[in-house]
Amino acid sequence: MPGLQRRLAEFAEVRDWGRYHTPKNLAAALSVEAGELVEIFQWLTPEESAGVMADRRSAARVEDEVADVLAYLLQFCEVLGVDALAALEAKIARNEERFPAPGNGDSME
Amino acid sequence: MPGLQRRLAEFAEVRDWGRYHTPKNLAAALSVEAGELVEIFQWLTPEESAGVMADRRSAARVEDEVADVLAYLLQFCEVLGVDALAALEAKIARNEERFPAPGNGDSME
Amino acid sequence: MPGLQRRLAEFAEVRDWGRYHTPKNLAAALSVEAGELVEIFQWLTPEESAGVMADRRSAARVEDEVADVLAYLLQFCEVLGVDALAALEAKIARNEERFPAPGNGDSME
Amino acid sequence: MPGLQRRLAEFAEVRDWGRYHTPKNLAAALSVEAGELVEIFQWLTPEESAGVMADRRSAARVEDEVADVLAYLLQFCEVLGVDALAALEAKIARNEERFPAPGNGDSME
Repeated sequence: MPGLQRRLAEFAEVRDWGRYHTPKNLAAALSVEAGELVEIFQWLTPEESAGVMADRRSAARVEDEVADVLAYLLQFCEVLGVDALAALEAKIARNEERFPAPGNGDSME
Repeated sequence: MPGLQRRLAEFAEVRDWGRYHTPKNLAAALSVEAGELVEIFQWLTPEESAGVMADRRSAARVEDEVADVLAYLLQFCEVLGVDALAALEAKIARNEERFPAPGNGDSME
Repeated sequence: MPGLQRRLAEFAEVRDWGRYHTPKNLAAALSVEAGELVEIFQWLTPEESAGVMADRRSAARVEDEVADVLAYLLQFCEVLGVDALAALEAKIARNEERFPAPGNGDSME
Repeated sequence: MPGLQRRLAEFAEVRDWGRYHTPKNLAAALSVEAGELVEIFQWLTPEESAGVMADRRSAARVEDEVADVLAYLLQFCEVLGVDALAALEAKIARNEERFPAPGNGDSME
């Protein structure tokens, strides 16, 4: 992922897109792409939504939107110096405390 | 990233959250978190938005929302069998064709 | 609705919030509130989502988010001079052409 | 606005779209349209965003997205029996208490 983040940064730099890439704009762009991902599913039942990759065209659309969301997330992290993987690691650790796995303390011995 | 994706999947499985984790719901959750990221910046000028990590509290909030967005993106990819990194690689390659880097052909020799 | 739009405009003016109320910021704020509305439903089944007003607390939350979405929509329209009701009327008229009501032409005589 | 809400309801009913119009789906559709509104502004400076209606094509796009947001908001309210105008009135009243207008109590007599 750091390699892709670097590649995206160079891509933007070479094209002089830096002035558009404020954190505010990149956060907005990320949410726009997330909306386009939601759009694919908006009228589907939960069951239909699970089968979306079986259709070649909607599979391509899903992959495209996933790429866009990840691209803007990494570009956002790049301009603010955020380490997305470290942030997620820390969050998982916090959530493991917040939502303890059930059952382990319930054994009857 | 695949390690984190696996860890998130186990986290959900142990807590029996699988029935909530339809692609439709995870896409919605992703967009909700993207909205929370936008909220941090909504009233800031572009300049203020660039300085958001200087304040410890807003930095923590940014990192937290980044983690949430990435978590739901990976969980979405997990349930649909999408490889987010491969999707992004393919997208960058397509964009390099679509938006050629300027200047290389303009040299004067 | 024009009365409410006027009241919101005065509310913002008296508090000197005008400089925050660029169309860009108001559109972002609208999408943030729409995300908060989605959040109420994100883990619900379609059936559960239909019963959300039966619970007093979630009913209040729904009404609150509806008010926020409408407030930002009207403030957005105010700063750009858009007439939301006229825009919707025009859209409905276009859609009545685009999606003709079924059945009328199918009579058997 | 109640007239438009009724007209939208009939429009959906005649086309048998009722089964798609769960509150959950309509909230998602609303957020998708809000994202499309944000998209218009995502790379604009605050100043550029204020001039968006001067260009005929982007003005039409803004009006179209405003109509879509309002349409889904009203359809959402219709299926849940929410009175959007009353909700907004109540919210404004609450906000007038929460954010008192400055200055009135500061007179020096």
